[in-house]
Amino acid sequence: MDYAGRIARVREAMARQGIGLLYVPFSSDAGWLTGLGHETPNPTESNRPGDIVAGLYLGRERGPIAVAPRMGGEGVRAEAAGKGWIEDVIVLPEPGDYAAALRETVGRLGAGGGAVAVADRAWAVTTLALQGALPGVEFVSASTGVIGPLRAIKDADELALMRRAAAITDDIYAAILPQLRPGVTEYEVAREIERQARARGAREMSFHTAVLFLGGNSPRGASEPAYGGPLDLPLERGMGIAFDFGVVYEGYCSDFGRTVFCGEPDAEGRRVYDLVIGSQGAAVAAMADGAISCAGADRTARGRIEEAGYGAGFTHRLGHSIGRDVHEWPSLMAGEETTLRSGMTFTVEPSVLLPGKAFVRIEDVVLVTP
Amino acid sequence: MDYAGRIARVREAMARQGIGLLYVPFSSDAGWLTGLGHETPNPTESNRPGDIVAGLYLGRERGPIAVAPRMGGEGVRAEAAGKGWIEDVIVLPEPGDYAAALRETVGRLGAGGGAVAVADRAWAVTTLALQGALPGVEFVSASTGVIGPLRAIKDADELALMRRAAAITDDIYAAILPQLRPGVTEYEVAREIERQARARGAREMSFHTAVLFLGGNSPRGASEPAYGGPLDLPLERGMGIAFDFGVVYEGYCSDFGRTVFCGEPDAEGRRVYDLVIGSQGAAVAAMADGAISCAGADRTARGRIEEAGYGAGFTHRLGHSIGRDVHEWPSLMAGEETTLRSGMTFTVEPSVLLPGKAFVRIEDVVLVTP
Repeated sequence: MDYAGRIARVREAMARQGIGLLYVPFSSDAGWLTGLGHETPNPTESNRPGDIVAGLYLGRERGPIAVAPRMGGEGVRAEAAGKGWIEDVIVLPEPGDYAAALRETVGRLGAGGGAVAVADRAWAVTTLALQGALPGVEFVSASTGVIGPLRAIKDADELALMRRAAAITDDIYAAILPQLRPGVTEYEVAREIERQARARGAREMSFHTAVLFLGGNSPRGASEPAYGGPLDLPLERGMGIAFDFGVVYEGYCSDFGRTVFCGEPDAEGRRVYDLVIGSQGAAVAAMADGAISCAGADRTARGRIEEAGYGAGFTHRLGHSIGRDVHEWPSLMAGEETTLRSGMTFTVEPSVLLPGKAFVRIEDVVLVTP
Repeated sequence: MDYAGRIARVREAMARQGIGLLYVPFSSDAGWLTGLGHETPNPTESNRPGDIVAGLYLGRERGPIAVAPRMGGEGVRAEAAGKGWIEDVIVLPEPGDYAAALRETVGRLGAGGGAVAVADRAWAVTTLALQGALPGVEFVSASTGVIGPLRAIKDADELALMRRAAAITDDIYAAILPQLRPGVTEYEVAREIERQARARGAREMSFHTAVLFLGGNSPRGASEPAYGGPLDLPLERGMGIAFDFGVVYEGYCSDFGRTVFCGEPDAEGRRVYDLVIGSQGAAVAAMADGAISCAGADRTARGRIEEAGYGAGFTHRLGHSIGRDVHEWPSLMAGEETTLRSGMTFTVEPSVLLPGKAFVRIEDVVLVTP
């Protein structure tokens, strides 16, 4: 991966926008920029002494400097070894004066001339500490203004990993389908998907695995069932089954959706299935370099579903950029006028909710090309 | 759980500190304050339209108002039904003008008189949006100033769940020990711990399960091995095995550490094991209501380990508060002068790293009583 090139392009964007300092936590941003790994978030909040100022700091001329808590800090130092594009790793003491450590880091980078750009998902506590260290300075988003547009265009190294993540996902699905028998529960299928992912070299899922049974005795009702996890709900004949899952392979995500039925779907189920897959195909066919906007792609698929009278059942954006994170900027959504360019990768995932019957979604990851 | 009482106590703290508006994301804070659940963070960033302003907003007289993205929003509304202490749930449209939704919510709550308190782990993007909506207003931490001290004292309902989480953890450990045989890998043991947790009704771990083999052919070296996950590393005779894991039961965490050896430990291994468990016992014995500070508890355990000549091997705080999150405020650490009070719950987890041999840590959760 061309980390030095990425750092140079971020600095060009900083210069254009009058940004003197950029801060990102240890996250997909830091990984994309430097190759430093990051831990998946713990299920509950893990507060380590010093982690309120941990992350990556980049000045216009100096840096990046990685600041790490003592707990885990030697691991960051080991990872940074041999990465010549990382200026320094500071491992904080425990306990320590972390506000002072922040002031020192910011001072070393010569910040103070220009705005400060912070990642959207940096913490409030870090943001307020930076504002305290640099009073009167303007704060802007590092995500939408600087890093998002650069991350949106994947290079060949990234695409190779995304193709592998997608292939693993296809293989998992092929292994799961024969296991769908009446009596198996959502929870069991979801866990089996994750077991299959691990067996194929993906140690993380890219988001919480969704296996949704609708119809019959399912309590899943009239709204998209996106809240909470899989249920101890046995599969019955006549149910519609929606899959939505993805894996992380070497830091890059897949995201995959399919809909099947236990037994034969009724006429409306078949008609809506054909409608959804046709609307997906129409959008994909239109998504060529320079030929359409994000909003236009959304309109292409949504128009077909609305014409067929199912518009009220398609309640979400058509898709989203994907890469190191499952949801990246930009979305395929009304109001997003960004033009599609070669190297962008999007999920295309139209859906129609048939309340009490099925949640028909078909989702693939698509690479924009000429 | 006495949510109305918690909201009243938070408002008293807001009034004392001149805070007019409090914001917390959907998180353990929101769960503690209102009983609204929250999803465990996805392994990679999940960006839903509207989630930059999602969370719980509390005014001095009005609120709390829950603001939720469309994706999952009906789930939040269903959860809030019957919870009379939640004033309203706003489900955002997709797409939508989220800055305007934020201004409207803040306006409804009559914010503007007094400071704004935001949770430490609220996002930068939300913090900057709030600063834009309320220019010139002082921003302070909702975590250290308001919510942290209240969450630190557990009530009887919370302690009942924490006892259950601890009992499940003990049972898992009892089931795992007979499975430790030469050849089993760190990764396999960690996955088996998680399988056992699910089988006992805990659907989440409270943090990434750590199973650490040291000595023999282990690459785990001279620093505490806290970065990255379990390895495909087979157990060999002579290795020291360190466990660190916990479960979430009905929203409350356990955190548990033990050290065992494959085969007989050598004389230093035994001596250090006795030293660590003795230092833990000394700290626990001293941790009575009003009798000692957090820093004092740390000194009690650390003093014994330093006297025995192993102080350099005990590189972290003695422990931390625990409840809905694995790491809560305050820590048992030098510099933390908070006095221990009945109802506080802490991990007590002294350790000594014997480089290339073992990482001897023994950890239990302790309730402070008279």
